[in-house]
Amino acid sequence: MKRFKTFVFQVLDEEDDAGHPLNKPVGLGIMALIALSVIAVIFESDQYLSDTFHRWFYAFEVFAVTIFTLEYLGRAWTADLKFKDLSRWQAIRRFVFSPLALIDLLAIAPFYLELALMAYGAQKILDTRFLRVLRLMRLLRLFKLNRYNQSLRLIVKVVRDEREKMVVTLFMVGILLVLSSALMFTAEHDVQPDKFPNIYTSLWWSIATITTVGYGDVYPITPGGKILAGMIALLGIGLVALPTGILASSFVNYLKDPGSQKEQEEKKEEEKPPLDFCPYCGKKLPH
Amino acid sequence: MKRFKTFVFQVLDEEDDAGHPLNKPVGLGIMALIALSVIAVIFESDQYLSDTFHRWFYAFEVFAVTIFTLEYLGRAWTADLKFKDLSRWQAIRRFVFSPLALIDLLAIAPFYLELALMAYGAQKILDTRFLRVLRLMRLLRLFKLNRYNQSLRLIVKVVRDEREKMVVTLFMVGILLVLSSALMFTAEHDVQPDKFPNIYTSLWWSIATITTVGYGDVYPITPGGKILAGMIALLGIGLVALPTGILASSFVNYLKDPGSQKEQEEKKEEEKPPLDFCPYCGKKLPH
Amino acid sequence: MKRFKTFVFQVLDEEDDAGHPLNKPVGLGIMALIALSVIAVIFESDQYLSDTFHRWFYAFEVFAVTIFTLEYLGRAWTADLKFKDLSRWQAIRRFVFSPLALIDLLAIAPFYLELALMAYGAQKILDTRFLRVLRLMRLLRLFKLNRYNQSLRLIVKVVRDEREKMVVTLFMVGILLVLSSALMFTAEHDVQPDKFPNIYTSLWWSIATITTVGYGDVYPITPGGKILAGMIALLGIGLVALPTGILASSFVNYLKDPGSQKEQEEKKEEEKPPLDFCPYCGKKLPH
Amino acid sequence: MKRFKTFVFQVLDEEDDAGHPLNKPVGLGIMALIALSVIAVIFESDQYLSDTFHRWFYAFEVFAVTIFTLEYLGRAWTADLKFKDLSRWQAIRRFVFSPLALIDLLAIAPFYLELALMAYGAQKILDTRFLRVLRLMRLLRLFKLNRYNQSLRLIVKVVRDEREKMVVTLFMVGILLVLSSALMFTAEHDVQPDKFPNIYTSLWWSIATITTVGYGDVYPITPGGKILAGMIALLGIGLVALPTGILASSFVNYLKDPGSQKEQEEKKEEEKPPLDFCPYCGKKLPH
Repeated sequence: MKRFKTFVFQVLDEEDDAGHPLNKPVGLGIMALIALSVIAVIFESDQYLSDTFHRWFYAFEVFAVTIFTLEYLGRAWTADLKFKDLSRWQAIRRFVFSPLALIDLLAIAPFYLELALMAYGAQKILDTRFLRVLRLMRLLRLFKLNRYNQSLRLIVKVVRDEREKMVVTLFMVGILLVLSSALMFTAEHDVQPDKFPNIYTSLWWSIATITTVGYGDVYPITPGGKILAGMIALLGIGLVALPTGILASSFVNYLKDPGSQKEQEEKKEEEKPPLDFCPYCGKKLPH
Repeated sequence: MKRFKTFVFQVLDEEDDAGHPLNKPVGLGIMALIALSVIAVIFESDQYLSDTFHRWFYAFEVFAVTIFTLEYLGRAWTADLKFKDLSRWQAIRRFVFSPLALIDLLAIAPFYLELALMAYGAQKILDTRFLRVLRLMRLLRLFKLNRYNQSLRLIVKVVRDEREKMVVTLFMVGILLVLSSALMFTAEHDVQPDKFPNIYTSLWWSIATITTVGYGDVYPITPGGKILAGMIALLGIGLVALPTGILASSFVNYLKDPGSQKEQEEKKEEEKPPLDFCPYCGKKLPH
Repeated sequence: MKRFKTFVFQVLDEEDDAGHPLNKPVGLGIMALIALSVIAVIFESDQYLSDTFHRWFYAFEVFAVTIFTLEYLGRAWTADLKFKDLSRWQAIRRFVFSPLALIDLLAIAPFYLELALMAYGAQKILDTRFLRVLRLMRLLRLFKLNRYNQSLRLIVKVVRDEREKMVVTLFMVGILLVLSSALMFTAEHDVQPDKFPNIYTSLWWSIATITTVGYGDVYPITPGGKILAGMIALLGIGLVALPTGILASSFVNYLKDPGSQKEQEEKKEEEKPPLDFCPYCGKKLPH
Repeated sequence: MKRFKTFVFQVLDEEDDAGHPLNKPVGLGIMALIALSVIAVIFESDQYLSDTFHRWFYAFEVFAVTIFTLEYLGRAWTADLKFKDLSRWQAIRRFVFSPLALIDLLAIAPFYLELALMAYGAQKILDTRFLRVLRLMRLLRLFKLNRYNQSLRLIVKVVRDEREKMVVTLFMVGILLVLSSALMFTAEHDVQPDKFPNIYTSLWWSIATITTVGYGDVYPITPGGKILAGMIALLGIGLVALPTGILASSFVNYLKDPGSQKEQEEKKEEEKPPLDFCPYCGKKLPH
């Protein structure tokens, strides 16, 4: 039993790169299943395909959920091999509440929830939009891929380091959005009451303009509104430049850091200060 | 009385982080009131909500203005505790004319102005667009949040350092806008006289194109106009890249500065000067 | 006479900052005249304003051209004071063919050309679009402002340093434009022959997409066309990121250079190598 | 014969800059022929021009393919002069499978394929869209220009160095696209079933929004859909900022490298190692 447990751990644990020969194939297999499962959700959203291939979609879903459930249970079971310094239950608890495990749970929970609701005769609820949302939650499986990609974690790390500045930028964008909506409401409400009925509806125009998407469903038609819109669009360019500048500087910094750390370590080795006194004759040595 | 004054100061002064236990809650409370007050303005802009909940909006506004007025008076009263080396009146004067206090004043002034106008029977003026603008001025309360955010001040500082380059970029964008409007006017006026009636109306097309918003309400239809528009759009991309590059370099520089200063200080310590005296004959050595 | 010439030179020469008390006012006056003159051209493009205020526009134009002509002649006359090591005619020649002087000439030439054409009875030509273009050429006066702005020259310098990379980026954008036009032509021609009649007309769609302007007058409607358009739009984002990255790195580099040059100069002073032999006892000195 | 082979090699080899006087003209000639050939394809796509000038287009195509074929054969023949340490056939093999030679082959293959298909009486196939695609493949000749531009190779190199991060960014964009399509499908399907019929069709909206192109053919109209769209557009701005930041940091790094290497070499020279022997007693010193 213990050997089987070790086998399961070595096969499933994605950080065990050099280990078991089955480790990599199983990882790739799960990634492929995630991808296929997401593609299935995408195509099942089409009414025609959903009706025609209903059985196939359902069978594949049962298969995918079975595998993901086994994976989840296997990881939970071998959690004490991963966190060796914790007791059995502490290890499982730590695993269950880790972000990646929560994502794993979210990836299978909708299926069981649907099953449970059907078992309790809640068929009526399932015919509504609620079912659709439940089915789309399967797309969260995409985040399971996080586990297998190191570069992704790297970028996430860089972005997270600049989190605070990003939030402040978002906050400034928020202020600009509110003020520009209020200004455009003042300028355009009388002429286009259907497009700018109030400030919060005008936000739709503001966000389409500041992100430079510009669908063209709402735009100012009065001279004053156009002048305001022009200035807001130019300001928006500046605000969009902010996150780019912040991220760029963070990447520059990140690229420099490892080098400088290495340099510092090399320096430390060199810093072994040269002798001050000759160990043989005892005289002070010049440097 | 003096103890109460100190209490008010410690509670209100946002730089007194480690001080009074009420300092932080009061700060958060004022921030929440600002947010609620802005949300109220946004929803009051809706004719239906404004009519239905008129009393509630008014009551909340009176409450918010009361708090903001007390805050303003409290800060003014305790100004001599903040600027300790100034006399009482000098401290109040310095507070009143500080940017943050002016914003605080702007946040409450519209309410009192409206009150004053109503008292003098100027009801007629208040029924017009003037009232709407006055009410929207309450949105300036958003800038009161400045006081509570250090990261915001940081970004503002970086942007301000690059102010001059930004202005020059804006100036270049301005020239590009005018020239492209003139060119498009020449190319399209004869075919679309309603869209490009003159150069200053054509500016609307230019700004929608150069900021890449592209609503689609105005666009060239002649081959010549399209070729010009394509070149202008490409040039616009370059001009939009300028502020991004400038901000990015500024952030990089800002991140590097502390490090480089430290390095220079370390270097100075290593700059162990060459020998001053010959270790053999003991005479002073020239350099 | 010579004193008057020196006076004209000191008043007009924009590099003579600390000199004559009239130097700055005259510079500001010319800048204001340029701005007013450009604004006049912009408003004269409006048929109504042009008809109503015809006399005023003409009078102002005569005034502006008179001033600009006097300025040009003054600069030419005092060219030998600017280029002191050249003979009189060499100095004038060098001035006349300098870029800034050519811009100055372009700013006044259209007026005299129009006058000359009218004198020779070519009234007929002047009623056509040719006249409009001639009038718009007055907008080139904007570039006269170059003379008075140092920061602008700085940015122009940075952009010029990255010229080669910019051209290559433009070249890559060009290839992407041609290929995407050809692809969209293949995908959409059969369904929308009026929107994608041939490759060069499809370029209009390509440029609106890659610059992310997206007017919405032309867009793919077939599934294949939409997939292609999606990939092209994503690639376009990458290509737009290139000039931004290049400019950002150039600004970073520029900000670092002055510092590093200074450092190098300081190093040179330090590099005065310490003595190798004691000048008194002749023994080799340790370092 | 051998002298003729050397002559061909010196004339064709683009890395032989300082060599044969005909080298540069021939290179420029081939580049001009590529450009003309691409322009011909672009204009031939116009039905009218294609019908009217059919003979001219065909004649020019035969001429261009002849030159490109001779160039290809010449390069293959002289491959053993380029790769001097390889045998004749090894050199040819290495040339044929080099990326640039494959592009050269792709540039002429469509013509011969069309010829072969016509010879075998497959005229029927040639009347279809297949012919059009075959003809457009001639546009791949644009990539032949790679050979003649060093700066292009530089930028390609920088982009390639950041390949992995770019792929991860693209992957994140992909996840965002899928999730936002699913969300918009949920929010808008009931109201606009023709615009958001299923998730994969909703991708068209997602990509137009995240790249900020915003044609305006599809956009949300429900409040929920607009709120989602706003948040997605803002997130899209962030994701677009990522490649810019990555490229900018890479260019910064690239610009810095040469300098820092030089610095390191200078440092090495300064790293005059501490004394090896005591200058007083002459014994070897330990470090």
